Amino acid sequence: MNNVVEDSVSVIPLLEFIHPQMERMRDIVHEIVAQVDEPLSSMLRRSLGGGKQLRPALVLLVGRMFDSGLEPFYSLAVAVHMLHTATLIHDDVVDGASIRRGRETLHMQWPAGAAILAGDYLLGQSTSLVAELEDPRLFKVFAAVLRTMCAGEIRQMVASQRQRPDWETYTCAIGAKTASLFAASTEMAAILAGADESQIAALRLFGRELGMAFQVVDDVLDFVGDEAQLGKPAGSDLRQGLITLPTLYYLERVRSDGCVNAVLSGLRDEEHVQAAIDAVCASGAIEASLADAQAYVRTCQEALASLPDNPARHMLHTIAEYVMHRSH
Amino acid sequence: MNNVVEDSVSVIPLLEFIHPQMERMRDIVHEIVAQVDEPLSSMLRRSLGGGKQLRPALVLLVGRMFDSGLEPFYSLAVAVHMLHTATLIHDDVVDGASIRRGRETLHMQWPAGAAILAGDYLLGQSTSLVAELEDPRLFKVFAAVLRTMCAGEIRQMVASQRQRPDWETYTCAIGAKTASLFAASTEMAAILAGADESQIAALRLFGRELGMAFQVVDDVLDFVGDEAQLGKPAGSDLRQGLITLPTLYYLERVRSDGCVNAVLSGLRDEEHVQAAIDAVCASGAIEASLADAQAYVRTCQEALASLPDNPARHMLHTIAEYVMHRSH
Repeated sequence: MNNVVEDSVSVIPLLEFIHPQMERMRDIVHEIVAQVDEPLSSMLRRSLGGGKQLRPALVLLVGRMFDSGLEPFYSLAVAVHMLHTATLIHDDVVDGASIRRGRETLHMQWPAGAAILAGDYLLGQSTSLVAELEDPRLFKVFAAVLRTMCAGEIRQMVASQRQRPDWETYTCAIGAKTASLFAASTEMAAILAGADESQIAALRLFGRELGMAFQVVDDVLDFVGDEAQLGKPAGSDLRQGLITLPTLYYLERVRSDGCVNAVLSGLRDEEHVQAAIDAVCASGAIEASLADAQAYVRTCQEALASLPDNPARHMLHTIAEYVMHRSH
Repeated sequence: MNNVVEDSVSVIPLLEFIHPQMERMRDIVHEIVAQVDEPLSSMLRRSLGGGKQLRPALVLLVGRMFDSGLEPFYSLAVAVHMLHTATLIHDDVVDGASIRRGRETLHMQWPAGAAILAGDYLLGQSTSLVAELEDPRLFKVFAAVLRTMCAGEIRQMVASQRQRPDWETYTCAIGAKTASLFAASTEMAAILAGADESQIAALRLFGRELGMAFQVVDDVLDFVGDEAQLGKPAGSDLRQGLITLPTLYYLERVRSDGCVNAVLSGLRDEEHVQAAIDAVCASGAIEASLADAQAYVRTCQEALASLPDNPARHMLHTIAEYVMHRSH
């Protein structure tokens, strides 16, 4: 899976281009966290520190693209980062996940109750940051994405217990749980920049398709990535009984499957999981999934055409390449 | 404890006065819940249906007091009711509470993960309702109270594990976890009604002091109420190791205590808990706590003086009496 694990397109150019802005964003996060009592402060510092921070980077890049005064974009970037982190904390409690980004999840180090409350606090803090921007339209997009993400997670939880999803259910689920926040991030940034309606729509589309590609690649990496890079064991989705795009394609292609269904029916020891991973990888399902991701990337890059042609826009284009070819 | 369990002042006059408005508020809740997929829809219907719904009633009464068009007040009342319910759902998961309002808590009937997500969904839905009102000042109050409540819950969680609270810690804790939402409810309603700054401040004060009284009485009822009326076993706080105002007064008065400290140190069987309840009730701590509640009620009723003198204002005055003398 060379096109997935190659590192030639990495997040590094992104970091160079907006490095000072990302640093400033992190400083604001630290300032906010420093005002909170222990142990919440440590919990927040720990959970807000990691990850690629791609969603706040998108907000800052849209700000740069429109050459806007960046101050309000920092607030929005922090709000988006905190909202995302809150959903990760809650998801980890819900899934009982013990490892994220190579480290123990929050609820493994502190009581699960404290992790739930820390997530709630971040929801409140991110809502406050958006409220301070005093734009009703921003607040509406923010509130809508919070609902969409929760409803999506609940649907996925129920679906994975009840029946096998089809392509449409899968697309709807990743749209709600992942692409919605990417779309809201770029849309809110466009609104904040005072972009016109067609540009706002273009940036929403950009975010949405980028988010779809991101999640498909994420689901592929769960099969082909290695544990050190992923920061969690491969095959985590299958182990949870979660059917993602590679498994969907596999089950469509391989009518006489035994090993994937064995895992899905509950045989989740190492041997069965590894056999299932190998079967999916050998079936062409990975390539089919990546072709879908590439199509999302194409649409998302095309959406940039109507936007100001400058280095920030080129950076957004490059991020789409990165999302396609990232290894973790 | 006659002044607590008497029923002469009940919630009934409140219900009569704004019965049609409360019904309309509940209809809106049902309409929103009906649009959600199962099982979330059932979870929400169940958790939104019970309780005294005092906070949304306050919102509607403030609307009535200012003779405002009531349509936006319904949205705000539903938002406040949903925010409150979301925090109850999460608190029950955090505390591992199995009974609320005489029924099994949500996370006992569905997986805890689903309950966490249902709470998050309600947070998102309530944020959406406030966003639709398009007033930045409302968003700010709403976002601030969400943060305050979460931070308060976390502080209480840590405090109850680490050290015994003093009166100030207790006051601060109930201010954050309870009075803040009462205050935000009446403040947001005043803002929505277009009240002037002094009236907004008066209604915020009214809500805050009412909330303080409400929580002190709640903490008293945990000692003197009966299980059928409370909808949960008496002595729940002590059993959780939670020190509330009656216990604080008791420990201040009874220097040679054995039985309360025994429960707080972990001896939480029925016999020890009942002995501790009896000791607190015999010490005068209940009366001292109720005197504090009465002082909050007095301040809250005085805050009404500057507001329009009409039946809705009289109703708010009566609600303060009800809060003081309620039995559940």
